Amino acid sequence: TRPREAAVHFGILPTGSLNAITDVPGVKVGHFTKIQGENIRTGVTAILPHGGNIFQQKVPAAVYVGNGFGKLAGTTQVMELGNIETPIILTNTLSVAAGIEGVVKYSLSQAGNENVQSVNAVVGETNDGYLNDIRGMHISSDEVIKAIQSAASGAIAEGNVGAGTGTVCFGWKGGIGTSSRKLPESLGGYTVGVIVQTNFGGNLQIAGVPVGEKLGKYPFKDALEKSDGSCMIVVATDAPVLDRNLERMAKRAMMGLAKTGGIASNGSGDYVIAFSTAEGLRIPYSMPSGKLEEAAYLRNDDMTPLFMAVIEATEEAIINSLFAAESMKGKDQHQVEKLPVGQVLEWVKNK
Amino acid sequence: TRPREAAVHFGILPTGSLNAITDVPGVKVGHFTKIQGENIRTGVTAILPHGGNIFQQKVPAAVYVGNGFGKLAGTTQVMELGNIETPIILTNTLSVAAGIEGVVKYSLSQAGNENVQSVNAVVGETNDGYLNDIRGMHISSDEVIKAIQSAASGAIAEGNVGAGTGTVCFGWKGGIGTSSRKLPESLGGYTVGVIVQTNFGGNLQIAGVPVGEKLGKYPFKDALEKSDGSCMIVVATDAPVLDRNLERMAKRAMMGLAKTGGIASNGSGDYVIAFSTAEGLRIPYSMPSGKLEEAAYLRNDDMTPLFMAVIEATEEAIINSLFAAESMKGKDQHQVEKLPVGQVLEWVKNK
Amino acid sequence: TRPREAAVHFGILPTGSLNAITDVPGVKVGHFTKIQGENIRTGVTAILPHGGNIFQQKVPAAVYVGNGFGKLAGTTQVMELGNIETPIILTNTLSVAAGIEGVVKYSLSQAGNENVQSVNAVVGETNDGYLNDIRGMHISSDEVIKAIQSAASGAIAEGNVGAGTGTVCFGWKGGIGTSSRKLPESLGGYTVGVIVQTNFGGNLQIAGVPVGEKLGKYPFKDALEKSDGSCMIVVATDAPVLDRNLERMAKRAMMGLAKTGGIASNGSGDYVIAFSTAEGLRIPYSMPSGKLEEAAYLRNDDMTPLFMAVIEATEEAIINSLFAAESMKGKDQHQVEKLPVGQVLEWVKNK
Amino acid sequence: TRPREAAVHFGILPTGSLNAITDVPGVKVGHFTKIQGENIRTGVTAILPHGGNIFQQKVPAAVYVGNGFGKLAGTTQVMELGNIETPIILTNTLSVAAGIEGVVKYSLSQAGNENVQSVNAVVGETNDGYLNDIRGMHISSDEVIKAIQSAASGAIAEGNVGAGTGTVCFGWKGGIGTSSRKLPESLGGYTVGVIVQTNFGGNLQIAGVPVGEKLGKYPFKDALEKSDGSCMIVVATDAPVLDRNLERMAKRAMMGLAKTGGIASNGSGDYVIAFSTAEGLRIPYSMPSGKLEEAAYLRNDDMTPLFMAVIEATEEAIINSLFAAESMKGKDQHQVEKLPVGQVLEWVKNK
Repeated sequence: TRPREAAVHFGILPTGSLNAITDVPGVKVGHFTKIQGENIRTGVTAILPHGGNIFQQKVPAAVYVGNGFGKLAGTTQVMELGNIETPIILTNTLSVAAGIEGVVKYSLSQAGNENVQSVNAVVGETNDGYLNDIRGMHISSDEVIKAIQSAASGAIAEGNVGAGTGTVCFGWKGGIGTSSRKLPESLGGYTVGVIVQTNFGGNLQIAGVPVGEKLGKYPFKDALEKSDGSCMIVVATDAPVLDRNLERMAKRAMMGLAKTGGIASNGSGDYVIAFSTAEGLRIPYSMPSGKLEEAAYLRNDDMTPLFMAVIEATEEAIINSLFAAESMKGKDQHQVEKLPVGQVLEWVKNK
Repeated sequence: TRPREAAVHFGILPTGSLNAITDVPGVKVGHFTKIQGENIRTGVTAILPHGGNIFQQKVPAAVYVGNGFGKLAGTTQVMELGNIETPIILTNTLSVAAGIEGVVKYSLSQAGNENVQSVNAVVGETNDGYLNDIRGMHISSDEVIKAIQSAASGAIAEGNVGAGTGTVCFGWKGGIGTSSRKLPESLGGYTVGVIVQTNFGGNLQIAGVPVGEKLGKYPFKDALEKSDGSCMIVVATDAPVLDRNLERMAKRAMMGLAKTGGIASNGSGDYVIAFSTAEGLRIPYSMPSGKLEEAAYLRNDDMTPLFMAVIEATEEAIINSLFAAESMKGKDQHQVEKLPVGQVLEWVKNK
Repeated sequence: TRPREAAVHFGILPTGSLNAITDVPGVKVGHFTKIQGENIRTGVTAILPHGGNIFQQKVPAAVYVGNGFGKLAGTTQVMELGNIETPIILTNTLSVAAGIEGVVKYSLSQAGNENVQSVNAVVGETNDGYLNDIRGMHISSDEVIKAIQSAASGAIAEGNVGAGTGTVCFGWKGGIGTSSRKLPESLGGYTVGVIVQTNFGGNLQIAGVPVGEKLGKYPFKDALEKSDGSCMIVVATDAPVLDRNLERMAKRAMMGLAKTGGIASNGSGDYVIAFSTAEGLRIPYSMPSGKLEEAAYLRNDDMTPLFMAVIEATEEAIINSLFAAESMKGKDQHQVEKLPVGQVLEWVKNK
Repeated sequence: TRPREAAVHFGILPTGSLNAITDVPGVKVGHFTKIQGENIRTGVTAILPHGGNIFQQKVPAAVYVGNGFGKLAGTTQVMELGNIETPIILTNTLSVAAGIEGVVKYSLSQAGNENVQSVNAVVGETNDGYLNDIRGMHISSDEVIKAIQSAASGAIAEGNVGAGTGTVCFGWKGGIGTSSRKLPESLGGYTVGVIVQTNFGGNLQIAGVPVGEKLGKYPFKDALEKSDGSCMIVVATDAPVLDRNLERMAKRAMMGLAKTGGIASNGSGDYVIAFSTAEGLRIPYSMPSGKLEEAAYLRNDDMTPLFMAVIEATEEAIINSLFAAESMKGKDQHQVEKLPVGQVLEWVKNK
């Protein structure tokens, strides 16, 4: 059960019909999940801004670094040029090379890219090394391509799938989560979608309830436990937003994470990648020199509802990942329990 | 009544003895409040990192820009050099010039600064123009110096004082608020103190209770209301933290703001200034050329408890500002009500 | 004589007709020069992106910090919103407050701004304290307004005028300098203009000739002399460039400075402010909510000629300031000599 | 012949004994050059900050992005934590994945790293696709490890070796170049070393002589030619400099590049990585929690000579790469000529 099906709300804006990043038209998501033997618990999640050739039709994009203890590839080019030209890949920390290799091979082999000699792969990660034999580097570039090729519209599997297969969040089993918001027509009617790979710690709060404290799991409880870990966040919108304002949207995702009790600990790699799917803002790879880009885009003054949508959808996506994840046993017999969802729902409803 | 006196808690770490930024030894705060006639409702708040000559004994510092629709002066030098060399001034948007002039005159006139020709004044602001005749520019540089000279250790007045005199927050009367955290000895025993000037909007949440929604005050309720406004946040610590890690601490303050329901709207000037008072990290103005700085400072790995302290203290300082502020009538008969504290406390206790 | 009149060239692109920032249509520049008694040698330079109400018709803009030991006001808002809404003021370090006050008063008093309550003044400075009694803070807000009001199109006075009145550069008298480049029509035909306030040190190189070494004035010659000081650089273009690419243009100005031998020493406040005057990119203060901005702007791929133009024009503007400045005696009988232009020209021509 | 052997000087500071990055004690450099058949012209260059286990003994470091059209991996963690924990790898654009994989495998396999689960590989690149079949992705992770394992102290091969095998610079054959500066004892006696992988365009200037113009090779000569390409720059110093000031040093390398006529075109990936080898600033992977770092480091005020050293050594390293590179024929019979060194030397000497 997703929290919203149990009447738990996060904020005031309505969700899209799927309450998923795929409510943003054109966005596709694919998971490759790798659970093998006792020690392999990992995977790949691919997010495609649109179904066409992304390299030929780049999308405006931005990256915000919440806390940079992570290996996200591709950041400086996104920041410099304001666009993304490949699928976005999420995987485990030591498989970023496989992620890049997969994205590069995929891009080079697409029809129309026969002469391409430079590809900026955007590959994020969190560390699933507690449940997964991460040092084994078990993801191959072919598996990354599989995740890309399996990407589809529609509902998205959450929890222990794809890049969330082996992650841990607030001491409970984490994973993939997603959510969306649809602005009222009076505010533009735009959709904002978020997908997260949750692998971080902090003082868990769900819909305002201090769940971490109630369950006795919170940072430095014994002045000993660490609370490290990371969260990768991808934000999509069909609103026509250029790169500078996409960066501002990305920044707000960390505020949604904060509402779940995340603290962006020293060891966390918390990154937000935001892009716009607005067709009028596509950036073609080839254009006649000197031809101006003609575009219609949102002004600063109209960004606030989108900021709020990002905050709300990020909070809900993170909690969704916790609700969907199941208990898992993995490497070295490590066991991580599922959040006690029934107990949490009781608290939330009685507050 | 402060929330904590009513047994409302924010997070898990204990506060310092005053639950104020002045729990950080050496930090001094001074208010100059200007309420005159029907239209003047403004003021100045000065925060002094220590009681000595700050220009001669600079402190490590950093600035984080949560949202930069604001006029904070002095940022680039703080970022470049990693230190602050003056009192920090908070005031209204159109009085930043008076703030700088006051700080410069104060610094030039201090004993020992007779040959100083360059002063980097750090002056922040929020816009109190709803209650205050801000276009009148009613703050003078002398009044800024008064705020500096009145700075003292000990308990701090909150609410409608100093730079918070005319501010509005979440649709209620905002103002100055402060809070602190004291880490357990096992985590270093350091103190983190926060002071805020609250003048922003969003979807108010207090200790997890969706107060904004319950009271029917939240952004875009009628798809019309704007939710703009700003928050200035100053973070002090006696932990020996260098500038890079101070910036990371500053970044976490926005996560505390997020927990109160702030959304960092387009029009907000949300800034965080963080400094360390650790005596071993003072940066003398004059030193023999070539002499190395010798210092002992916290490593990255030990920063997480301080991050959590910043988040908690910022959340509480903001809510403290709302609890302390009183209803006010000002410019053009504008009236802003005090938060209905009794109602809120009931909700919080029954959750 | 300007170097170009003596057949000295900087780079390969042609200049505009005035070889000045005012070659960019609409840009106006005003100087207020204050030379009084033996000790006052300072002033103000105002740069207006266009002749209308800038607050109501903001221009896309960016700031790049070459080295941030300076007090440039207004940076964070320019970076956040991507625009400038006031005249740009240059003055001395301790008169930034007067600069802000002047800009705010000017803006508040303009017809159409009667309800404006927030103004982001952009005020830069360098330190003229060697020749000028800077501690006297001899610039008033009225004098700042005078500089704004005197702004005009056409040729610009260089050397010991306005904000360059008392500055020192490479050990010689510095001041105001300006230059421009006009791209060939095949590259868009755009104009780039630069104006500088030169007050920095380094190892002077003019058109490739190591003038500093030949004249025996260079940093650490005696392993003693410092080489501090600052350079304020303003870049204007009529090319339709949005804020992200304006920031990239701004960044290239420091490369032009590098070609003169500047080293961006620790104590320098080297900042570049860039804006576009393209009428199609104006950002109106008031627009109906939700209405998209419709614009045509240059793509990343077409930026390189503009980058080259910035580099060339910045190098030439700096050298122009040195050629135009005259020897000056000021505070405490300090004397700074004019660059020996005849000697330099001989070297340059014989190379 | 290196230019300096022909009495060409760049700036005023003396070089180290090798005039190479390896003048910084402890720094090692290794090349793997891959020239196969008619189409493979590529390689790997590895720079090791010290000869020990870098993961266990990290070094303070910073990254500066001159222009971010590039794929440099590892940037955000270096910026967040202020250190580097692996060898630095340079290779071609589409082999960054191989670079990361090589560094990760190398690091995981080092004695003492048996439990390491997270490695931040720093891998830079430029695009050698004109001479090299870059789409073939001919570099393997094993070849990256070979470059690391071959790293040595002492003189460094320049020109068509390692990551510079197939690069092109200013229209001539580029490659690897290196240079150093040794400050006089009165300024600390520190050494600064630079190594570059040159693959960029612009208006070539050598020791002040406008070589590009004289040879008729410069950007937009026919308003048609593009001038894209990249430069990777690595700066090492034994001066005890913390991360913030290392970033400032990194920034100055772009000023050295500017002096060679580089323009940081739109398509360039110009990055600078700077680190300090000072033993007192090593950052151990494991330390008792709460233990302060005790260090002695350079103050802001003493940085200027190091800034100048970076500028000079970068300029010279770039020119060294051009002098050392030889003409090469590669992919699709593409031919790139060697800079006409004799002619250049004549011009330089006669200036």
